[in-house]
Amino acid sequence: MRGFANRATVEAALAWIDSAIPVFDHLGTEVISASNAATRILAQDVTSCVDVPSFARSMMDGFALHSEETYGASSYNRLPFKVIGTCLPGVPYSGRIGTGQAVRIMTGAPLPAGADAVLPVENTELDGEIMLSLGEVSSGKHVGTVGEDVRNGDIVLRKGRLLRPQDIGVISSIGVIHLSVVRRPKVRILITGNELLPAGTTPIDYQIADANGPMLAALIERDGGDVIFPGIVRDEPDAMRHAFLESADIVLVSGGSSVGQEDFAPKLLAELGEVAIHGIAMRPSSPTGMGRLQRRLVFLLPGNPVSCLCAYDFFAGRAIRAMGGRSREWPYRRVLVRLARKLVSTVGRVDYARVQINGNDATPMAIGGASILSSTTRSDGFVIVPSDSEGFPEGAEVEVFLY
Amino acid sequence: MRGFANRATVEAALAWIDSAIPVFDHLGTEVISASNAATRILAQDVTSCVDVPSFARSMMDGFALHSEETYGASSYNRLPFKVIGTCLPGVPYSGRIGTGQAVRIMTGAPLPAGADAVLPVENTELDGEIMLSLGEVSSGKHVGTVGEDVRNGDIVLRKGRLLRPQDIGVISSIGVIHLSVVRRPKVRILITGNELLPAGTTPIDYQIADANGPMLAALIERDGGDVIFPGIVRDEPDAMRHAFLESADIVLVSGGSSVGQEDFAPKLLAELGEVAIHGIAMRPSSPTGMGRLQRRLVFLLPGNPVSCLCAYDFFAGRAIRAMGGRSREWPYRRVLVRLARKLVSTVGRVDYARVQINGNDATPMAIGGASILSSTTRSDGFVIVPSDSEGFPEGAEVEVFLY
Repeated sequence: MRGFANRATVEAALAWIDSAIPVFDHLGTEVISASNAATRILAQDVTSCVDVPSFARSMMDGFALHSEETYGASSYNRLPFKVIGTCLPGVPYSGRIGTGQAVRIMTGAPLPAGADAVLPVENTELDGEIMLSLGEVSSGKHVGTVGEDVRNGDIVLRKGRLLRPQDIGVISSIGVIHLSVVRRPKVRILITGNELLPAGTTPIDYQIADANGPMLAALIERDGGDVIFPGIVRDEPDAMRHAFLESADIVLVSGGSSVGQEDFAPKLLAELGEVAIHGIAMRPSSPTGMGRLQRRLVFLLPGNPVSCLCAYDFFAGRAIRAMGGRSREWPYRRVLVRLARKLVSTVGRVDYARVQINGNDATPMAIGGASILSSTTRSDGFVIVPSDSEGFPEGAEVEVFLY
Repeated sequence: MRGFANRATVEAALAWIDSAIPVFDHLGTEVISASNAATRILAQDVTSCVDVPSFARSMMDGFALHSEETYGASSYNRLPFKVIGTCLPGVPYSGRIGTGQAVRIMTGAPLPAGADAVLPVENTELDGEIMLSLGEVSSGKHVGTVGEDVRNGDIVLRKGRLLRPQDIGVISSIGVIHLSVVRRPKVRILITGNELLPAGTTPIDYQIADANGPMLAALIERDGGDVIFPGIVRDEPDAMRHAFLESADIVLVSGGSSVGQEDFAPKLLAELGEVAIHGIAMRPSSPTGMGRLQRRLVFLLPGNPVSCLCAYDFFAGRAIRAMGGRSREWPYRRVLVRLARKLVSTVGRVDYARVQINGNDATPMAIGGASILSSTTRSDGFVIVPSDSEGFPEGAEVEVFLY
C-alpha cells in the first residue's frame, strides 16, 4: 500500500501514446466488398480505369439535334424539326440525325450521332411528328461529356480516407467491387476483480455486476475497434498472465490498476513488458497506467466506472482511433455555453467535469465520485479544466463536449 | 413530356414528412441483449430493482475504523490502532471492529461492522501489526453509501433515449440483460433504370454502373435504418409494381422519378397510393417526390447521383431518423467559415452548394452538375442557400455542414 510516487501530466501521457502508435502501425489491411466499406479507412489509392460517363449523354429531357439549325428560333419564329426516333437511357438511337431532324431524348440517354446539343422539352411544342423549336440552343448545350464525372486514370480517392456514403457511390460507378481497407485494431477487454459478477447479473451479497466491460465494448465499437471480451478474468497472476498474452493489438485492463496489494496488473505488465506511465495528474482516473507488451499497447484503466470512462476517453480511445487510421480527436460535438455555477478545480491537475445543459447554461454535476456511473448518464457532456487553472467562475463561457 | 407544373417549397415538403411520420409511428419494438443496445433507441423506461452499491463500501485504499478514535491524531501525535484483518473487494471482513482496532481495506471493499469511516493509507504509517494514524477522519468519510449510484426503484433511463456507451454500463450494473428498443425502420431501396448495371460492374456500351444503391445503403445504415436492397429493378410497370408492394416501412425509389415518359414510378405511386408532393423548388433534386403506399412512406429520388444524395439528405434521411426515434436534424457537424468566392443562387429556390474548405475559407465547387457525384467526394461539405436569398458575397460568413 503506497500512493503514486510521481504522477505524469496528461500531456506526457498523450505524447507517449502518439509516439507509441507509429511503432504499432502494423495492423495491415484487409480486402472487403466496396458495399461494406462505408466508415472504414481506405488502405489504397482508388484509381479509375474507366471514364464516367463513357459516352456523351443528355442532361435534360428534350430533343437531340444540330444546334445551328435552331438559330433564330423563338416563340414568334417556331422552327420545325421532324422527330425521327427516340433515345432512352441505355437504349441509343441507332441512326444518324440529318438536316431538319431531331430525336426525342431523355436525361441520361446517349447523344445520337449527328447531334451536338439537346433542346429542352420546355422550349418545344409537338405537332404530330413535327417538333417546333421555340428557342435557340448552342453547341454542346445540355450534353454531358465523356469523363466529366471521373476520367480514366484519375485517382478518385486517396489512401487514409474515412469512406463516406458518396465515396461508396463513386467507387461503385467505376467498376470496383473490392477495396483494401485498414484492418480494425483488435482490442481485448480484460476485466478483473473477484468481487465482480458478469454484466447483467443481479448484484448479491458483496458482489457487484460488471459495468465497465459492456461500456468499453460499446466505446471500442464506436471508435472502429474490433472487440474481444471473453468475460471476467479472476484477479490472480496465472489467469491474468494468460489473458495478457492472448492475441490483441490493444489490451484494456479494468480493475486492479490502483496501487493496492491486489493489483497484479501493473506488476504483471512490468514483468512481461513495460509500464511507461502509471499515475496521471487528473481527476478522476489518476490511477491510469499504460505501457507495452511485445507488440501490444496496454492501458490500465481504473475500476471505478467514471474513471474508467474518463481514462478511455483521454487515452485508450485515442490510441484505438489512431492505430486504426482515424482522427485522434474526440468524436464528441462541442458547444459553447455559460456556467450556471462556478466550477472549482486544483492547479496541477486536469479535471473532467460532467455537466448538465439547460438551454444555454451548463450546470456542473454535484457528485464528484468516480464510482457514480449514473452521473454520466444524467449529464449531457463534460468540461475539461486544464491543469494550470483553478476552475471557472459562474457565468464563464466554457466548451462542453457532448456525449 | 412536360415540366413540373407547380413546385412545392422545401418547407412544405419537410412539413409533409413531419405530419406523415406520426401516422407511421407503428414500428413497434424488439427485445435485444443490453450488450448490443448501444446506439439503439430505448422503447421502455429502465427502472432499477437494486441498490448500487448494495452495501457500504470504501472509496479509498486505507483502514476502516471508528472515526472518533482518530480525533487528535496528527503527524506530531500518531495514534496507534491494531490491524486485525483485511477486507478486499468481494471479500468482507467477517468480524467486528472494536476499540483501538482497524481493518486494512481496499477501494470497493465492503465496510466492516463497527467501522464508520476509512482513513486513507496516505495518512498512516505501519509498524508491524500496528497502524499509526497521522490524521483525523470524520464519520462517513471515504465511505460510499448504499444506493449512492442507483437507488432501488429509480428510473435510470427513459423511453426514447439514444443509448450511449455509459448507459450500457449502468444497465449492466443493475441486473438487466434484455432491453426493449425501437425496431429499426425497414428501408427498401428500389433502383430502376434499364441503362443500369449492378454496382461495381465495369460500365460498357451505353450502360452505367449503379452508384445510388450502395450510396443509399450506406446513408440508411448511418441513420439507423435496416437496408433491403435486392438489386436493380427493371423500369417496367409489372416489375416496379411488385417491388413497390414488398414489405417495407419506407421505400426509396431512385431513377425514373422525373416527368419523362419512362417514369413509371410516380404514375405507379399515384395508382397504388398517393403522391403528396412531386417537384420541389430546390437545386439540385427538383424532381423529388414523396407520398404514401398503404403504411409505407415512399420517396421518389432523382436518378442523378448528386440529386439523389441531396434529396436523401433533405427528405428521406429525416424520415428514416424520425421514424426510428432519432433526431430529425442532420447528422453533420457544422462550422462557420468565410466564402472565398461569391455563391450565386436564385430567389425562390433552395440551393445545396458543395464547398471545399481550406483553413477558414470555403470555396464553392465550380461544377453545378447534378450528375457529377465525384463533386461530393472532392468537397468537404455543403452550404444551404435559402429560397429568399440570391446567394452570398465573397467574404461572407456561412455555415458549412461537414460530410
